[in-house]
Amino acid sequence: MTTGSSAGLFVALEGPEGAGKSTQTGLLADWLTRHGRDPVVTREPGGTPTAEAVRRLLLESVTLAAETELLLILAARSSLVAQVIRPALDAGRVVITDRFSLSTLAYQAYGRRLPLDAVTRMNRFATGGLEPDLTIVLDVDPATGVARKTGQGVDPDRIERAGDAFHARVVEAYRLLAREDERVERVDGTAPSARVHEAVLALLADRFPETFGETTG
Amino acid sequence: MTTGSSAGLFVALEGPEGAGKSTQTGLLADWLTRHGRDPVVTREPGGTPTAEAVRRLLLESVTLAAETELLLILAARSSLVAQVIRPALDAGRVVITDRFSLSTLAYQAYGRRLPLDAVTRMNRFATGGLEPDLTIVLDVDPATGVARKTGQGVDPDRIERAGDAFHARVVEAYRLLAREDERVERVDGTAPSARVHEAVLALLADRFPETFGETTG
Repeated sequence: MTTGSSAGLFVALEGPEGAGKSTQTGLLADWLTRHGRDPVVTREPGGTPTAEAVRRLLLESVTLAAETELLLILAARSSLVAQVIRPALDAGRVVITDRFSLSTLAYQAYGRRLPLDAVTRMNRFATGGLEPDLTIVLDVDPATGVARKTGQGVDPDRIERAGDAFHARVVEAYRLLAREDERVERVDGTAPSARVHEAVLALLADRFPETFGETTG
Repeated sequence: MTTGSSAGLFVALEGPEGAGKSTQTGLLADWLTRHGRDPVVTREPGGTPTAEAVRRLLLESVTLAAETELLLILAARSSLVAQVIRPALDAGRVVITDRFSLSTLAYQAYGRRLPLDAVTRMNRFATGGLEPDLTIVLDVDPATGVARKTGQGVDPDRIERAGDAFHARVVEAYRLLAREDERVERVDGTAPSARVHEAVLALLADRFPETFGETTG
């Protein structure tokens, strides 16, 4: 991470709807547990009582200005960082999160078209400058992601209903952000989940061999 | 107001705990109603379903980082501006609000000691640049305000319990902000409520004679 203690390791899994983030988060957490680590796993928005209440508000609200949506997401993130992620990293834990700052750039700046500089600055305020050591984007095209979500047979939430053009902007934003930042890596999310898991582990082993290397396997 | 339509008139009542904001908001709304106006009255945080949910979260949360508190307050404000205040002003209505941006400068920047420039910038994002035509600060010293609240016999909420030094900083911040900005006026809030109401009306009649002047009385 960028600021604060460097004791722990902070990994974010990112991607558009239906990219397989929760599946890969679970596989990665299981791998760490099998290899003697005790990872802290979080999912955004959520992870504290305040952030879970904000999550319900975000999903249930009928009318929500883009500015309100952004501020609620950042409120939830600031709560999660202060109460869960920072203390875990300070204690030397590995933290795996399903979504973090990159979601806000992709969805609120590129998707909702809020100004990128303002979103970036406010996000930094919410996180206190904390950034993942590595962010892995699970890349799927919009049609694949939406079809996967539909196949799950659950009612779409407010974000999932935002329209094809919105979701296409989100997918393109993730690809752009992965190209621009060396601490963001892209993985093909359309492969079978076991193959995606192997690709995620290979990236992590390359960057953080002491935690994910062959010798720990 | 600063931006958008200039059709309506936007007045904020401000001040520390126990300053008499809700009493004066009610008296001002009654005066406007008696004089043939149909004012829109709002109270922060609140005023939309999302903002009321945030209000409950703010008052009920046990642990809340200062950053989270600020972001939640701004989320509620952005919702209130987008869904209530802007539409009312665009329709030519008089809007009276019990708290607005000045509360955030006084409580979150000066009270909680968050950086003033970041608070100011994020607040501007939340309001879309909307500012009251006039903000009236009801000035009471901290001891008077706290004694008034205690006298009401209700349990103190999270903000009211924040401590004497916090509330002293808030009171001083309001005085400073009233001196620095010509669109912020200070009124002695320790006088009997009828006298405070007269002082509020006098200020408004001086600034906005077409709405509050003698001839409309």
